[in-house]
Amino acid sequence: MQYLVTGGAGFIGSHIVDALLAKGHSVRAIDNLSTGLEPNLKAALKNPKFEFFKKDLYSEGEACIPHFKGVDVVIHMAANADVRFGTDHPRRDLEQNTIVTWQILEAMRLNGVKQIAFASTGSIYGEPEVFPTPENAPFPTQTSLYGASKLAAEGMISAYCHGFEMRSCIYRFVSCLGPRYSHGHVIDFVRQLKKHPEYLDVLGDGNQRKSYMHVMDCVNGVLLGLERATERVNVFNLGVDGSCTVRESIGWICETLGVKPELRFTGGKRGWIGDSPMIHLDVKKIEGLGHRPEHGILASVVDTVKFLIANEWMLE
Amino acid sequence: MQYLVTGGAGFIGSHIVDALLAKGHSVRAIDNLSTGLEPNLKAALKNPKFEFFKKDLYSEGEACIPHFKGVDVVIHMAANADVRFGTDHPRRDLEQNTIVTWQILEAMRLNGVKQIAFASTGSIYGEPEVFPTPENAPFPTQTSLYGASKLAAEGMISAYCHGFEMRSCIYRFVSCLGPRYSHGHVIDFVRQLKKHPEYLDVLGDGNQRKSYMHVMDCVNGVLLGLERATERVNVFNLGVDGSCTVRESIGWICETLGVKPELRFTGGKRGWIGDSPMIHLDVKKIEGLGHRPEHGILASVVDTVKFLIANEWMLE
Repeated sequence: MQYLVTGGAGFIGSHIVDALLAKGHSVRAIDNLSTGLEPNLKAALKNPKFEFFKKDLYSEGEACIPHFKGVDVVIHMAANADVRFGTDHPRRDLEQNTIVTWQILEAMRLNGVKQIAFASTGSIYGEPEVFPTPENAPFPTQTSLYGASKLAAEGMISAYCHGFEMRSCIYRFVSCLGPRYSHGHVIDFVRQLKKHPEYLDVLGDGNQRKSYMHVMDCVNGVLLGLERATERVNVFNLGVDGSCTVRESIGWICETLGVKPELRFTGGKRGWIGDSPMIHLDVKKIEGLGHRPEHGILASVVDTVKFLIANEWMLE
Repeated sequence: MQYLVTGGAGFIGSHIVDALLAKGHSVRAIDNLSTGLEPNLKAALKNPKFEFFKKDLYSEGEACIPHFKGVDVVIHMAANADVRFGTDHPRRDLEQNTIVTWQILEAMRLNGVKQIAFASTGSIYGEPEVFPTPENAPFPTQTSLYGASKLAAEGMISAYCHGFEMRSCIYRFVSCLGPRYSHGHVIDFVRQLKKHPEYLDVLGDGNQRKSYMHVMDCVNGVLLGLERATERVNVFNLGVDGSCTVRESIGWICETLGVKPELRFTGGKRGWIGDSPMIHLDVKKIEGLGHRPEHGILASVVDTVKFLIANEWMLE
C-alpha cells in the first residue's frame, strides 16, 4: 500500500512513518520542518520505499497536490499544535489546521484517494461535563482556537466522506509522550529544572488533571483503527484509561531528574486561557477493536524525561 | 446602540435591519448582493440611521474592517446558504462561511467589538438520534459541507469569546419562511407548478420530516436572545416545536395555488447528499427566555406561497 503522512517528520508522524515502513508499505511524507525534525527521519531516509517532501501544506498547497497521486491512505498529522499561545497569532490555527485540512481533502478528491486518518484532539471536548468523556459526549463548546480548528477539520472530513464517498478514521488524542517528544509540559519542566533545579514555575494550581499516552501506543491505535474500523466516518478517542494531576507528573519528573525544587504555582484552575482543568477520555470504543495500550501514564512520563536527558540538544 | 448586520440585504438579515431600526437603533449592513436583494432594504434606505455597504466579506475582507468601528453588536447573517449543491463547489462554504466568520471575529477584535449574534443551522446536528434535538445533543457527525462550515464558525466564535472576552449568541435555525423568502423547497415547488401545474418533481420519497419557522418569529428570537442571554457563549435552537413531512407541505402549497399535480418522487430517504431525513429541534431553551413563536408551520408555508404569488418576479 502507498501511504502519505503529513507532518511526517514530527513527533508522532515520524513514528507512524517508521511503523508503516516496518510493515513493508511505501510511504511519502510531507513536512515543512517548522516543528518536525529531520533527525526523526534518519532511519526512514535510508529506506528506498520512503520519499520525503519538504513543503508547507498551506502556502505550497498547489505544489503538494501531485504527491497525492497513487496514494491509498492519507495519514494527516500535520498541524499547528501550539494550544497555549493560540491567541497570540489567531490566524495560524485557521491556516495550518482548518484550511490545510480542506486543501488535503481537495487534493485527495482530485487524485481519487479514498481513505484518510486524522489527528484530532481531546481538546475538542472543551470543558466536558462527563468523565471519562466518550466520543458521543454532549455537543461541546470550544474554549481554544486550536480545538476550534480541529473541530472544523473533523467536520470537513466527515462532509467529504459523505459527499465524495471517502472513508475516515478521526482520532481524538490525549497528549502523547515518549521518544522524539518535543513540546509540552514535560519538556517545559525539564528545561526549567536544568536551568534552575531549585525552583519550578507552574501554570495554574497544579491540580489540573491530564491524560497522557505513549507515542507507540498512539501509533498502534492509529494503524489498528484504519485496519479494523468499518463505518464511513469513524471517530475514536485515543488515550489510556486514566489521568494524573500536574502535581503528580511534576513528582515523577523531579524524581527521574533527582531534584527537589520549590514549586511556584501561578494559581487558578486553568494554566492558560483554553486550558482544560480535566482531561480523561473514554477509550472503550478503540479498545473494542482490540487496542491495548502497553504503557501507563507514569511510565510514559519517565520514558520522556529519560529521552530528553539522553538528547539534551532537544532542550535548547 | 450601533448594530452591524452582515448579509443585511438577505431574507432574514433585512428583516433584522428593519426590526432594529424600528426600535430606534443605528444600523449598518454589509451585503455582496449575491443572494441578498436591494429591494429588501427599500424602507431601511430611507432611514437616516441606516448605512449600507455593498461589499464581499470574503474577497473585500480588509476593506470591511473600518465598518466595525464603533459597533456595539455584530449580527452575522451572511452565508452561502446553498446546502444542496455544496459538493458542486466545495470551496465556497469554506470561504463564505468559515473564513468570513474568522475575518469578522478579527475585525471585531481589532475594533474592540464585544458582542456577536450568529446564524448557525440545525443542519449542524447531521442525522441526529434524539428528537426533538436539544442543543446539548450527542456530538454529531457532519453530513454536508454547509453544516461543517457552520460548525467551524461556531467553534471559532466560542474560542474568540473565551480568548478575547467577547460574548456570543449562536442560533441554530430551522429553515425560515415568510415575506422576502427567496430560496428553498417552497419556491422550487411554486416555480415548477407555475410552469407545469399538472405534475411536480420531488427529491426523495416525500417522507422527509422538516421544521420551518416564520421569519418574524426568527427575528424576534434573535433579538430576544441578545437581550436576555447571560452566558459568555449562548447556543440556542431557534424554530417551532413541530415538524411536517414534505408531502404535507406540498399539500398546503397545492391547495393555496389551487392545483392538483401528479407527484413524481425521485425516491430515497434523502432528497440529496447531506439532506436530513428528519429535522425537529428542541426549542425549550429559547422559550425559557420567553420566546413564543406566533406562526405555525402550515401558516408559514401558506404565507410564503402568498408572498411569492404577489411577487411573481421572485420566481424568475
